[in-house]
Amino acid sequence: MLAGNSTGKEFTVTTFGESHGKVVGVIVDGCPAGLPLSEADIQAELDRRVPADTRIVSARIERDVPKILSGVFNSVTTGAPIAVTVENKDVDSADYEAIKNLPRPGHADYPASVRYGGFNDYRGGGRFSGRVTVALIMAGAIAKKLLSRFDGDVLAYTRTIGKIRSDKKFSTEEIRKNRYVASSRCPDLACAGRMEEAIVDARKEGESLGGVVECLALNIPVGVGDPMFDSLDAELAKALFNVPAVKAVEFGLGFELIKMKGSESNDAYVMQNGKVATSTDNMGGILGGISNGMPIIMRVAIKPTPSIGLEQKTVNLTTMEDASLTVKGRHDPCVVPKAVPAVEAAVAITLADHMIRSGFIPKVLERKKIVG
Amino acid sequence: MLAGNSTGKEFTVTTFGESHGKVVGVIVDGCPAGLPLSEADIQAELDRRVPADTRIVSARIERDVPKILSGVFNSVTTGAPIAVTVENKDVDSADYEAIKNLPRPGHADYPASVRYGGFNDYRGGGRFSGRVTVALIMAGAIAKKLLSRFDGDVLAYTRTIGKIRSDKKFSTEEIRKNRYVASSRCPDLACAGRMEEAIVDARKEGESLGGVVECLALNIPVGVGDPMFDSLDAELAKALFNVPAVKAVEFGLGFELIKMKGSESNDAYVMQNGKVATSTDNMGGILGGISNGMPIIMRVAIKPTPSIGLEQKTVNLTTMEDASLTVKGRHDPCVVPKAVPAVEAAVAITLADHMIRSGFIPKVLERKKIVG
Amino acid sequence: MLAGNSTGKEFTVTTFGESHGKVVGVIVDGCPAGLPLSEADIQAELDRRVPADTRIVSARIERDVPKILSGVFNSVTTGAPIAVTVENKDVDSADYEAIKNLPRPGHADYPASVRYGGFNDYRGGGRFSGRVTVALIMAGAIAKKLLSRFDGDVLAYTRTIGKIRSDKKFSTEEIRKNRYVASSRCPDLACAGRMEEAIVDARKEGESLGGVVECLALNIPVGVGDPMFDSLDAELAKALFNVPAVKAVEFGLGFELIKMKGSESNDAYVMQNGKVATSTDNMGGILGGISNGMPIIMRVAIKPTPSIGLEQKTVNLTTMEDASLTVKGRHDPCVVPKAVPAVEAAVAITLADHMIRSGFIPKVLERKKIVG
Amino acid sequence: MLAGNSTGKEFTVTTFGESHGKVVGVIVDGCPAGLPLSEADIQAELDRRVPADTRIVSARIERDVPKILSGVFNSVTTGAPIAVTVENKDVDSADYEAIKNLPRPGHADYPASVRYGGFNDYRGGGRFSGRVTVALIMAGAIAKKLLSRFDGDVLAYTRTIGKIRSDKKFSTEEIRKNRYVASSRCPDLACAGRMEEAIVDARKEGESLGGVVECLALNIPVGVGDPMFDSLDAELAKALFNVPAVKAVEFGLGFELIKMKGSESNDAYVMQNGKVATSTDNMGGILGGISNGMPIIMRVAIKPTPSIGLEQKTVNLTTMEDASLTVKGRHDPCVVPKAVPAVEAAVAITLADHMIRSGFIPKVLERKKIVG
Repeated sequence: MLAGNSTGKEFTVTTFGESHGKVVGVIVDGCPAGLPLSEADIQAELDRRVPADTRIVSARIERDVPKILSGVFNSVTTGAPIAVTVENKDVDSADYEAIKNLPRPGHADYPASVRYGGFNDYRGGGRFSGRVTVALIMAGAIAKKLLSRFDGDVLAYTRTIGKIRSDKKFSTEEIRKNRYVASSRCPDLACAGRMEEAIVDARKEGESLGGVVECLALNIPVGVGDPMFDSLDAELAKALFNVPAVKAVEFGLGFELIKMKGSESNDAYVMQNGKVATSTDNMGGILGGISNGMPIIMRVAIKPTPSIGLEQKTVNLTTMEDASLTVKGRHDPCVVPKAVPAVEAAVAITLADHMIRSGFIPKVLERKKIVG
Repeated sequence: MLAGNSTGKEFTVTTFGESHGKVVGVIVDGCPAGLPLSEADIQAELDRRVPADTRIVSARIERDVPKILSGVFNSVTTGAPIAVTVENKDVDSADYEAIKNLPRPGHADYPASVRYGGFNDYRGGGRFSGRVTVALIMAGAIAKKLLSRFDGDVLAYTRTIGKIRSDKKFSTEEIRKNRYVASSRCPDLACAGRMEEAIVDARKEGESLGGVVECLALNIPVGVGDPMFDSLDAELAKALFNVPAVKAVEFGLGFELIKMKGSESNDAYVMQNGKVATSTDNMGGILGGISNGMPIIMRVAIKPTPSIGLEQKTVNLTTMEDASLTVKGRHDPCVVPKAVPAVEAAVAITLADHMIRSGFIPKVLERKKIVG
Repeated sequence: MLAGNSTGKEFTVTTFGESHGKVVGVIVDGCPAGLPLSEADIQAELDRRVPADTRIVSARIERDVPKILSGVFNSVTTGAPIAVTVENKDVDSADYEAIKNLPRPGHADYPASVRYGGFNDYRGGGRFSGRVTVALIMAGAIAKKLLSRFDGDVLAYTRTIGKIRSDKKFSTEEIRKNRYVASSRCPDLACAGRMEEAIVDARKEGESLGGVVECLALNIPVGVGDPMFDSLDAELAKALFNVPAVKAVEFGLGFELIKMKGSESNDAYVMQNGKVATSTDNMGGILGGISNGMPIIMRVAIKPTPSIGLEQKTVNLTTMEDASLTVKGRHDPCVVPKAVPAVEAAVAITLADHMIRSGFIPKVLERKKIVG
Repeated sequence: MLAGNSTGKEFTVTTFGESHGKVVGVIVDGCPAGLPLSEADIQAELDRRVPADTRIVSARIERDVPKILSGVFNSVTTGAPIAVTVENKDVDSADYEAIKNLPRPGHADYPASVRYGGFNDYRGGGRFSGRVTVALIMAGAIAKKLLSRFDGDVLAYTRTIGKIRSDKKFSTEEIRKNRYVASSRCPDLACAGRMEEAIVDARKEGESLGGVVECLALNIPVGVGDPMFDSLDAELAKALFNVPAVKAVEFGLGFELIKMKGSESNDAYVMQNGKVATSTDNMGGILGGISNGMPIIMRVAIKPTPSIGLEQKTVNLTTMEDASLTVKGRHDPCVVPKAVPAVEAAVAITLADHMIRSGFIPKVLERKKIVG
């Protein structure tokens, strides 16, 4: 599968569809037979994608309604590939003709055009639109349901937007309960409001903001990951960098570790309730590319949305001359809130894949009596 | 190839061998036919792995001499798989019996033991020893030779060790010339000495240090990378996290981007000598997962070496009780210098793979006259 | 991609959908950008699937109308995944409840039920219905269009049905013109009528027939194929055995070769119009797993349709006792005619994949002027 | 892994080395941890490769002695990649310079030269020598040991050589006991002698012979195989066509099925000792691409050895003119006997891979007490 639109080895995900095409869709293959699954499961995750506060999101408002086309029979997965699509309804391509030859700074327009010989669908960013995270989130919904059957949980939330950072230490209960309450997706609800104001302010200036999304994966057993080249952290990082706008990924204390000495950074082993644990989790739950049973802690940097309201310098690809551009079309002044469920999906997909690969999730969840 | 010991789709690398086994080896498959290649090419990269200053490296000293077993005929690659091995000579396994049931904090001992049912070769860390980077570097030597034929270059160097950081802006000439001169692998030779002293001091205390390795990939054409799931940054990050001790990866300004607004972070397009370029490189040469022709800039955090001379808390996996441990065996007080060529190798392998995938490197480099 | 619903490395095909589900669909990924493609191209191949003579086909009659969901923009491929679906309209699942616990001899019912823990969609055979060849044929339509741009052509036709065999040596012109004229898909139109009568007779008896499909691949250049494990014949054979009901595959003279001596079986090289050719084609155009420029000749055995009108012995999987069964539902008394376009599709997909892999088809077909 | 030198998804095999290079070797990755394995296990299979009767084999006589380089610790597999090599000792490359530009009919010389731009190692056929089956057989030895732990067995033997065919129905006991007794590898020892004489006669004439190898896979559970594209028969066929000189593959009755009606060809289900079985095995143990629990029956056609002692027509690739050639070098007048263990290996490797894929072989065979 060389073309790059598929990921995973056991639990595999292939996405298709463009921002302004007929549908955005996904094939999940390798999901074990025997998992109860409905369109409502997927709808619930999709509904998390768009924050309620319309001041901070793109004007493109459409409720995405998923349709399961295959792989589910009598509301249970069959072991066959699961195809799910959502239609693209609220499409307005008019604004994009202008930018056909004027690549938008910070977007994929220019390199994508070269990569695909100029044949790529540029409307709304085509395959490079944030809209394709719809497909990711639908696959993530299936992965999360599968993980939950084995007690696994994935929780992402906003830590920072622009210069506003919540330094609060959250309990997992707090994260579970609050992370999708505020439109900024920060479980520190006091801080969340300030983040949203910062986004509104940026929008007024024609500007945009970035931020940090933090993610925990809980109850992942010891022994998940396939070094040397499919180390669990390496695979998670790959999934995270495939989320649009991610520019940095760290595990545990990440860049903070370099200021420490070995005696400070090492997580000491201790017995806890008859189980091996570590007294700290500086390494973020992964050692040598394999999970050690502690919470997996990840942090990603999301760049400021490249679409801004101000005039920018660019070049005209037809005349090969300097030019300027004011991006039209509808766009989010900060994609951090929408990145939160996408990060959860990316992590859940990767963990579902590796839990099967490491033998913790069987290839058939259960066997009906009638079969020999 | 589920087991995780292979990487790449076109230019593929499979490593084998353990720290205290007979050999460490690598298979490079998919290297195009027609590339001149000798054991000297590989020797040159291997020789960069061990710094000259014996105060800062493990006492395990052996010059690794590569042997090409296949895939090269008349000193040119044939298109068949290239196998290269080095023997493990200076092996001393005695110290490792003690730790069999006492997992070393910060090492893969415990999760690896669970992952492989207790059958893994634990001597010297087995597959999880830094020694297996020998295999990576050998594959990297081939990748670099292939890239150089298409003007590509990969330059890694030390930016920070512990609390010592060089803030100097290096010219590529300076990096090329100096990066392997000092044992700390920092091209800022004044700063390099201070870094080495810091390592020596840490060693005396029984401590260890981490640091930051920075890496540039130069002359990579526009249009390399395969989104949505094999984005160039995602694939590079995966390769980098597979380098032992890496805990964070960022591209361009990375985490710094979140403090900026969109008008500051976006790299404006400009015409330069008739070509499209950007006036800044905040994004590190990759947009939407595809190279944009600017230098690719990466930065990785290397954690302090987990092997330290001080007593540490651990558990006894046989009795399942708390225990303590003082790590014996030979180890490096700081692996940052050895990580430098490993980072170059990881990046070069990934780029060679993607340059073929994107069609910039042909599958056969040239054709001899005699064939039809 | 472990689950087995995808094939190919460069030009990859993933199918989804079940016989009585909402749709049958396919994702073609890795098709180079720049190929003109319309739904009419796919419709033309689908229309070849169902023979005109209603006496010899299943009563399930529905014209399959393909819908391209993604990957095509302004009637040209974009390099993004191409999703195509057809709806299942004429579905009648009533007859299948009875057989839920009574596996039909010769069908996949029993092993599939075990494989997927009893959760597979058994209606109409589910994933194992001949209907899923619709997906194969849609992907084949794209592959054939791509191959034709490089002069490649794939021609399958019926050689034998039951005991009726045409021994005629066909010109490629004759095959091109006649192979889809008669409902039996035999280009020997005199013989074709007798084949159809044999099928009609078998149906009257409640019986079924098998046969032989022969296939030629023309104008495939020298040097396609990836030994040792992706030899061109090995990959073609794999694709052919994935066509439902295929039980044997041979290349060139196949089993006839074993009666010959080496001096008889070897194809001597000769110069022909300035090019290397062979005076015979006993090997069927492949040597050592690589094409030699001669026509690739394949022959497959199709077993008699397992669904017959007569009572058969089976077992009851609930009671685990012997039982008997008369298969209801609609079925073809001979699937050879429907296998013909499926064989073409399987071969075309494999060749498209390997033509890209061997570098004969570029990853982007052409580049528009506007891009740098 | 595009280059074609690897196979398998869970239990993966990568071969390397050329006929006249330093070694022939193999990497087996994904073999579960916990399998006892020694060089003696591999030696036993290698010793079956060369028949005792020196009249019927190539004059190249060297006992191949395997060396395990990695992946085994304390005589048990560790879960890490297992590398095994044998040295090439009895190499005589002198005869091959002459044929550099004169491709041998029936060999891969010409297409391989085109495929690899003329850079391939042509000495002794290089990668295309029958000698590389040494690597296949070493991997097969590991696969067979793994299968045997789950009662699986693979038995190949000669059915036909040239015009001499044994029609005897063998018991599995007879096959197990006799298949490697006679140099022709036919368990019908009376017939075996006549086969050997036929080979001797062919050799005297400067001729060569082909034949048929039959193979049984026993005790493979119901439910192995991954349709639609990794059907068990498709994967086995692929493996078999990758064995040098194979030109046809059939399962069960294969081409004989086309003469039967559905009521004759269908295998009726019956209860046998409380288990589901079929009263006949016309389908060769596979339905819809999934094993049904019956013996898997395969038959392959091996073409006459292309290397013959008689003068043959060829072309000169330098001058592009017609030419003639008498093949020198050492070669077997019939490769059927050497193909027997190669067929066993190919089948065993494929089944080991699919037994893991279908969940019948766990990813870690057992877990030592000490690990949590």
